[in-house]
Amino acid sequence: MNLGQGSTVEDFAVLGKPVSSPANSILSIGRRAYIRCGTIIYSGTTIGSDFTTGDYAKIREGNTIGNNVSIGSNTILERDSIIGNDVRIHSNCFIPEHTRIEDSVWIGPCAIMTNVLHPPCLIFKSTDLQTRPRCLKGPILHRGAVVGAGAIILPGVEIGERALLGAGAVVRSDVPAEAVVAGSPARQVGTIRALICPPGYYAKGEIYTWRK
Amino acid sequence: MNLGQGSTVEDFAVLGKPVSSPANSILSIGRRAYIRCGTIIYSGTTIGSDFTTGDYAKIREGNTIGNNVSIGSNTILERDSIIGNDVRIHSNCFIPEHTRIEDSVWIGPCAIMTNVLHPPCLIFKSTDLQTRPRCLKGPILHRGAVVGAGAIILPGVEIGERALLGAGAVVRSDVPAEAVVAGSPARQVGTIRALICPPGYYAKGEIYTWRK
Amino acid sequence: MNLGQGSTVEDFAVLGKPVSSPANSILSIGRRAYIRCGTIIYSGTTIGSDFTTGDYAKIREGNTIGNNVSIGSNTILERDSIIGNDVRIHSNCFIPEHTRIEDSVWIGPCAIMTNVLHPPCLIFKSTDLQTRPRCLKGPILHRGAVVGAGAIILPGVEIGERALLGAGAVVRSDVPAEAVVAGSPARQVGTIRALICPPGYYAKGEIYTWRK
Repeated sequence: MNLGQGSTVEDFAVLGKPVSSPANSILSIGRRAYIRCGTIIYSGTTIGSDFTTGDYAKIREGNTIGNNVSIGSNTILERDSIIGNDVRIHSNCFIPEHTRIEDSVWIGPCAIMTNVLHPPCLIFKSTDLQTRPRCLKGPILHRGAVVGAGAIILPGVEIGERALLGAGAVVRSDVPAEAVVAGSPARQVGTIRALICPPGYYAKGEIYTWRK
Repeated sequence: MNLGQGSTVEDFAVLGKPVSSPANSILSIGRRAYIRCGTIIYSGTTIGSDFTTGDYAKIREGNTIGNNVSIGSNTILERDSIIGNDVRIHSNCFIPEHTRIEDSVWIGPCAIMTNVLHPPCLIFKSTDLQTRPRCLKGPILHRGAVVGAGAIILPGVEIGERALLGAGAVVRSDVPAEAVVAGSPARQVGTIRALICPPGYYAKGEIYTWRK
Repeated sequence: MNLGQGSTVEDFAVLGKPVSSPANSILSIGRRAYIRCGTIIYSGTTIGSDFTTGDYAKIREGNTIGNNVSIGSNTILERDSIIGNDVRIHSNCFIPEHTRIEDSVWIGPCAIMTNVLHPPCLIFKSTDLQTRPRCLKGPILHRGAVVGAGAIILPGVEIGERALLGAGAVVRSDVPAEAVVAGSPARQVGTIRALICPPGYYAKGEIYTWRK
C-alpha cells in the first residue's frame, strides 16, 4: 500500500484489504489523507490527495478517485467506479459498481444509486470486468450535479451538469443540465436559475451558478 | 458457539455476543461461512452453510437462517426472524423482528421493513416472545420476491411469489404474486410477465420466470 | 471524560474522540449508560442518565442529550443538536447539525433529516457556531412527535406535538400538532384522533393520546 505524506489513520481502520482478483492489486492513497475510525478500503483502488472519510466508510476495489474527495460515515462505495475531483459524498450513501461521478458533484446523506435493471438476473450474476453484461450500468453524474438527501437513482440514468435532485426524489429517467427534479417518480419542477435564496444571500438565479 | 469447518472470520468481528434471554442460547453457524470485518452476530441465532456477511453487518438473537444466505454491509437483522435458503439481502437494509423471508428472495440495498403499526405503542413496548401483541407483525416475503433499492414495506404486508417492488416503492398493502409495484404509495404497474430486457438477453415475459 | 456509575462499554467503542474546536471540550455521560460495540462519541457532548446506543452508533461534538435516550445502531447524530428526555432514535437514521428534538419523540429506522436548503452553498461551507448562516436550520420535532421509517424531513421544518409522519413521507412543510401526514411530498391524511387500532387494544381516538 502507498499512503501519502501527512496522512492520518484512526483506530480500527483496515487499509489494503485483500481482494481475490487481480491478486497483485495495491491500494494507493495520496497526500494528506484523513481516514476516520473503522474505515475499510480494499486493495486495487487509487485515490488522489486530500482524501477524507467519515467513520466506518467502506470503499471496495477497482475505484479511481480524484483529489479533494470526501466519503462520509457508513457510506459504501462498491467496485470499479470513477470519481472526479472535489466530490463530496455524504453519510449513509450507497454507490454501486460502475458509477461515474464527475468533478464537483455533491451527494447528500442516504442517497442510493443502482446499476441493475432486473436483479438478480442470471446474466448479471456471472459478470466480471471482461464480460460485463450490457444491462449493468451505474448512473452518470455530470459535473456539479447535486443529489438531495435520500434520493434514489435508477440504473444508467444520467444526471446533467449542475442539475439538482430534490430530497427523496426517485429518478427513473435522465435529468437535463440545470434542471430541478423532485417526487416519486421524479419530475422536473424547475431549473436552478429560478431558485430563490430565502435569506437573501444570492439574487434569484444566482444559486448554484457559481458551481464549476 | 459452533462455527462450521472452512469458515473465515475477519478483523473486529464479534460472534456470539451475549443476550440476556434466554441466557443459555448459543450461536450456530454452518460450514464455509465468510464473516467480514466488524460483523456482529448475537447468541441464540442458527445459520446454515455457505453464509456470508458484508463488513459491519449486524444480526441479533433468535433468528433462523437457511443455507447460502448473504447479509450485506451495514445491514441490520433484528431478532426472531425466519429466513429461507438462497436469500440475498444487500447492504444498508433494515429487517425488523418477526419478519419471514422465504427461499430465493432478493432484497436490494437500503430496503426498509417495519413491524409496528403505531409505534411506540405501550403494548408493543411490553412485548416478549410469549405474549407478543397481535399488532406486531413483520412483513412476509414469499419465494422469489424481489425488493428494489430503498423500498419500504409496512407492517404485516405480504409480498407474493416472484413479485417485484420497484426502487423506492412504499408498500402499504399486500402485493399479488408476480405483480410489479412502484411509487409512493406503491400501486401495481404491471406483472413480471410483461417486463422487457432492453439488451435482449431474454424475450418478453421471460425475465424472472427462471426464479424458483 | 466523565462516565457515570453503572455504565457498560462494549468492544471497539471510541469515547471522547478528540475534536479540533474547542480544544478543551470534554464528553460527559450520566449514570447507567449502555454503549454498544463500535459506538463512537466525540468530545464536547453532554448526555444524561440511562443512555443507550446500538452497535456502531455515531455521535459528534456539541450535542446536549437528556435522560433516558436511545440512539440506534449505525445512526449518525451530527454536531450541535439538542435532544430532550425519553427520546428514541432507531437504527440507520441521519440527524444533521442544529436539529432540535423535544421530549418523548420517537423516530423510526432509516429516518433522514436535513438542514441546508441549497447545498453545497459557499456560505454554508464557511459556517461555524459564531457566524452561522441564516439558511442553516435543522428540523424541530416537538414533544411526542412520531417519525415513521424512512421518512425525510426538509430543512427547518417543524413537526407539531404528537404529529405522526408516515413511513417514507417526504415532509417539505410544517406539520400541525396531532396531524398524520404521508406521501411524497407529504400531505395531511388525517389526525391521530381518527386512527384505529386493528387488534382492538385501544378505542378509536385513543392511540397516541397517552403520549406526553
